[in-house]
Amino acid sequence: MTRSFIPPKRILMGPGPSDVNPLILEAMARPTIGHLDPQFIRMMEELKELLQYAFQTSNRLTMPVSAPGSAGMETCFANLVEPEDEVIVCQNGVFGGRMKENVIRCGGTPIMVETDWGRAVDIDAVEDALKATPNAKFVAFVHAETSTGAQSDARALTALAHEHDCLAIVDAVTSLGGSPLLVDEWGIDAIYSGSQKCLSCTPGLSPVSFNERALEKVRNRPTPVQSWFLDLNLVMAYWNSEDGARSYHHTAPVNALYALHEALLLLKQEGLENSWKRHMDNHLMLRAGLETMGIDFIVPEEERLPQLNAIAIPEGIEDVAVRTHLLNEYNLEIGAGLGPLAGKIWRIGQMGYASNPENILFCIDALGNVLNEFGYNTPVDKALEAARAVQAAL
Amino acid sequence: MTRSFIPPKRILMGPGPSDVNPLILEAMARPTIGHLDPQFIRMMEELKELLQYAFQTSNRLTMPVSAPGSAGMETCFANLVEPEDEVIVCQNGVFGGRMKENVIRCGGTPIMVETDWGRAVDIDAVEDALKATPNAKFVAFVHAETSTGAQSDARALTALAHEHDCLAIVDAVTSLGGSPLLVDEWGIDAIYSGSQKCLSCTPGLSPVSFNERALEKVRNRPTPVQSWFLDLNLVMAYWNSEDGARSYHHTAPVNALYALHEALLLLKQEGLENSWKRHMDNHLMLRAGLETMGIDFIVPEEERLPQLNAIAIPEGIEDVAVRTHLLNEYNLEIGAGLGPLAGKIWRIGQMGYASNPENILFCIDALGNVLNEFGYNTPVDKALEAARAVQAAL
Repeated sequence: MTRSFIPPKRILMGPGPSDVNPLILEAMARPTIGHLDPQFIRMMEELKELLQYAFQTSNRLTMPVSAPGSAGMETCFANLVEPEDEVIVCQNGVFGGRMKENVIRCGGTPIMVETDWGRAVDIDAVEDALKATPNAKFVAFVHAETSTGAQSDARALTALAHEHDCLAIVDAVTSLGGSPLLVDEWGIDAIYSGSQKCLSCTPGLSPVSFNERALEKVRNRPTPVQSWFLDLNLVMAYWNSEDGARSYHHTAPVNALYALHEALLLLKQEGLENSWKRHMDNHLMLRAGLETMGIDFIVPEEERLPQLNAIAIPEGIEDVAVRTHLLNEYNLEIGAGLGPLAGKIWRIGQMGYASNPENILFCIDALGNVLNEFGYNTPVDKALEAARAVQAAL
Repeated sequence: MTRSFIPPKRILMGPGPSDVNPLILEAMARPTIGHLDPQFIRMMEELKELLQYAFQTSNRLTMPVSAPGSAGMETCFANLVEPEDEVIVCQNGVFGGRMKENVIRCGGTPIMVETDWGRAVDIDAVEDALKATPNAKFVAFVHAETSTGAQSDARALTALAHEHDCLAIVDAVTSLGGSPLLVDEWGIDAIYSGSQKCLSCTPGLSPVSFNERALEKVRNRPTPVQSWFLDLNLVMAYWNSEDGARSYHHTAPVNALYALHEALLLLKQEGLENSWKRHMDNHLMLRAGLETMGIDFIVPEEERLPQLNAIAIPEGIEDVAVRTHLLNEYNLEIGAGLGPLAGKIWRIGQMGYASNPENILFCIDALGNVLNEFGYNTPVDKALEAARAVQAAL
């Protein structure tokens, strides 16, 4: 007989979802009210302001899409890219490939700039592509590649896009809240993220932000946006009408929005810079431990995302067996590799609420012990010591 | 300073969201686990079975889309309708119009069959349209028009579609769980619903079900589905792979799915027929009370949805003032009219957890008192008496 589902209590150190702060879960469980209730609309206004803070933007259109990050990506492409548009798509992992798919399905033409997986996007190659594509309208890239743990230079790529009269579309699913991201200062035109990474909220929402230049394109496109659900011209009547009124478009995911409001409030209370620093500090602890265990990062140091650590699976060690053991014996989730990196890497996230020294030490200890059990001899105590030494020096 | 959002405790008797059972809110607040965690996958399998029960179908592809009902609608149209396809779209309210928009945005041609708002879809008119459109591929209609409270004959419309070699696409957002709906027995090919109506779950998910005939179309279409996020060929790798494996497509809204699992479990525990009967019984109570107050339904009796009661706003009574008063003084939400019915009707929902005799009596009492305050003299005590008499006779 089917019963209520009682999930196990995991420690989520994969690529997301990350552990959710109990305060956020508590907020989510508050009584549902109507999506047009004046009190709810007041909450929506606060949420937009909090999101502007997280993105460091004053863009009026800064709101969560009522669906996961993939729908946020599609919101950007489906609203901006019109049939025949040429789009420079930078690919250095899974999510650049998904951008390509989005461009094609919008009837656009993707001009691919490929960089090795595990590296930051190659800016010179993007410049070459822009020079060779004088009519390109957009440069799309992933700020923080969740599939590889590489961080690209969003400021430089955006500046380059603008030099060539293109708009920059940016995937910040894994960076928002976890590492520096300055939407207005860098001039990013359209950006999307996810709720379940460094915001440490439950999965299911995708914050987006569009500047005026991008919005103008959306408002003036001669062809309709192919998605009714994601058409910002319609969604804005609910989230962002000029006159402050709110018209029904779709029924908002009320409780999920309570949760995001709480998550953003916690981020604001901590302070964005403090959150960035916390993720970096804990990354340095983790790095010290992993290096002591002789484990290699696949991303060069200066291109690494602190919040998502992609490491090479040691020679002779079997991917699934180790992850299953960690999950079953330690309740610890770490992430597998995707695409060509499947079976070759693990992805250790330390995002949002999960980014704390206790988790870092726990992860080093658990992974070290399991590796020892599986025949990879590694000095777990020394690794813990190294991590603690970093912690003490911070 | 922004603080945690503490919503007021409302009684939700509008067109949805409806009141959420506290057990569902509790389930939603359980710790988040990974979307590929074996325990989560086990929960997904149970959820699909429970959803098959709710839809009364054995369709293998029966799953919740990770976004609200509008995205469920788009899932049906974007996956099935190809450029140039002719689609008979029945419109007798707001949501038929949204179907038309979906067809257009998929590059299809909608052939509209319009029926007066507040009436069931005119089957003869649909037959005429089918005869005049020999190449039509789909008949799309709304089973339970949330904007008017009218119920159409889904069984007859589906049979008619099949006679003309069309597939039937059905909106069951407001009917699922609240009034009879037999997907397999009626032969419905593709159907979508919402979590926040008679399932009494939090808003944000859209259950869908496709039969093999519909799925075959999705699998064999020569053009790609224009939405990457909603492309069932990709989504199935996560929700429904043939070999039982689960591949990452998007990050599932984990906690929202806990909630839907619990909501469907509660429905199964009550029994579908019992739930249908409860909604009908409480409708009869409400009807007796409203009629005693001299208030008219806009839908003829035999076409009325029990769970959504559209009533004419009495002459001289101001829509917004009354609803605002009900919300502020009674914490009672009822729904406004949409489109051409704005300002002319109210929509009183009694769905899922909100469908109980206490709420019916509370609503009659509150509405009667407010109407009296606003100068429409109505015998509230007699109305309550009439409702109680119906209750006693059930």
